[in-house]
Amino acid sequence: MTAGAARLELWALQGFPEIRAEAALPQIIIHSLRDNGLTPTDGDVLVVAQKVVSKAEGRVVDLRTVRSTTAAERLAQETGKDPRFVEVVLREARAINRHRPGLIIAEHRLGFICANAGVDHSNVAGSDDVISVLPFDPDRSARAIRDEVGRGCGARIAVIISDSHGRPHREGSVGVAIGVAGLSPLLSYIGQPDRYGYVLRRTVEAVADELASAAGLLQGQADEGTPVVLIRGARFERTEGGAAELIRESEEDLYR
Amino acid sequence: MTAGAARLELWALQGFPEIRAEAALPQIIIHSLRDNGLTPTDGDVLVVAQKVVSKAEGRVVDLRTVRSTTAAERLAQETGKDPRFVEVVLREARAINRHRPGLIIAEHRLGFICANAGVDHSNVAGSDDVISVLPFDPDRSARAIRDEVGRGCGARIAVIISDSHGRPHREGSVGVAIGVAGLSPLLSYIGQPDRYGYVLRRTVEAVADELASAAGLLQGQADEGTPVVLIRGARFERTEGGAAELIRESEEDLYR
Repeated sequence: MTAGAARLELWALQGFPEIRAEAALPQIIIHSLRDNGLTPTDGDVLVVAQKVVSKAEGRVVDLRTVRSTTAAERLAQETGKDPRFVEVVLREARAINRHRPGLIIAEHRLGFICANAGVDHSNVAGSDDVISVLPFDPDRSARAIRDEVGRGCGARIAVIISDSHGRPHREGSVGVAIGVAGLSPLLSYIGQPDRYGYVLRRTVEAVADELASAAGLLQGQADEGTPVVLIRGARFERTEGGAAELIRESEEDLYR
Repeated sequence: MTAGAARLELWALQGFPEIRAEAALPQIIIHSLRDNGLTPTDGDVLVVAQKVVSKAEGRVVDLRTVRSTTAAERLAQETGKDPRFVEVVLREARAINRHRPGLIIAEHRLGFICANAGVDHSNVAGSDDVISVLPFDPDRSARAIRDEVGRGCGARIAVIISDSHGRPHREGSVGVAIGVAGLSPLLSYIGQPDRYGYVLRRTVEAVADELASAAGLLQGQADEGTPVVLIRGARFERTEGGAAELIRESEEDLYR
């Protein structure tokens, strides 16, 4: 801790190029960091929007190649969505959590509960028929970026793959972590004394989600989007990490 | 926007003093900003943890003065909590959303759905019997701080009163906004084109919650807590604002 106020800094990489299938994303990030005059240092966190990871991994689907099943057609009718789109949602999901006209909230096969199981129309090049799905294994994607960018920059960094999720009870979406490498997504204060010696009994902070939300403030959503954000000054535990720690187990979740 | 990477900066005010009832919180913040060498400028956002606002407003309850009703005693038995504590929760709540042993999720009278309707043990001076409740009107608290600190520093700032909430589906708590002044808590991208001309149909970002989460990374929970964070470089719409915009209406919420 330096003298004066503790500080957290975030930079959004400008001029990040269009990402296509099989793009060498870590190398592109290394070059973009350099172009932006940024040199990662030990303890920095790189937050990368899911969409560019999905595109680099070729995780896009052309709906013109999709044949919908009866289950998809039924859910499409109930929600007013394209049956081919719903078919992809069902393939990505292990359960439908809630639905109503215009909305499908699904449990993705990796456990995230979010709209359309992460299947998304926006920011995918080509036709309106081309959609993206989540990376196959976002933790693995995060580890690959962490290893290669860390090596390239000579720094021990952590990486978060972020997505933007709606929430029960509250309006608007916020950034959350769907892939994590090099940091513990949860920071526990349990057993620590507070300011007055009261021992905290249940405070666990989802730092990876807070980092993803902080990055979301700079990532934007529309055509000025900047998918990669570097964060310096965050406090976290260095572990291998993994986004599964952020998912409440089904039997513990009162909102299934 | 300067050349190079877009930047967001956050500073946590160090050495923030103990806050007691009737403390002049805005003046204390002005002095602390000065002590930390920080001069707010137009467009800065000040995030203030709910706990210090509650304490300054005398929103603490000594459980030794509370008599529990039958309803509180029943819920206390079902959850294993102190009936006097549950009594205060019921007074703060307009509905109980979920409960089980060790956990009460309640709808606060202002609409927030959170553990114990915001009633909290930690970081309150005195006895273990002294607890805090949320500010009576957090938007009004935010406006008072915005007006007085803004005037004192000669800058047009926005203010967020933040709290730390658990969430359905996900582990750990994150910072959220429970009071807002001087910014629109939601930033809508609806109707804007994405990078490829696809017109975004439903993307609304909860910037106030993302700002509260970003601040949460510096605020901490335990005895090293720093309740006030200054944020520079955030993009938001300047309106009067108000935290009610962040609350999904009951009939729209699939998780009531």
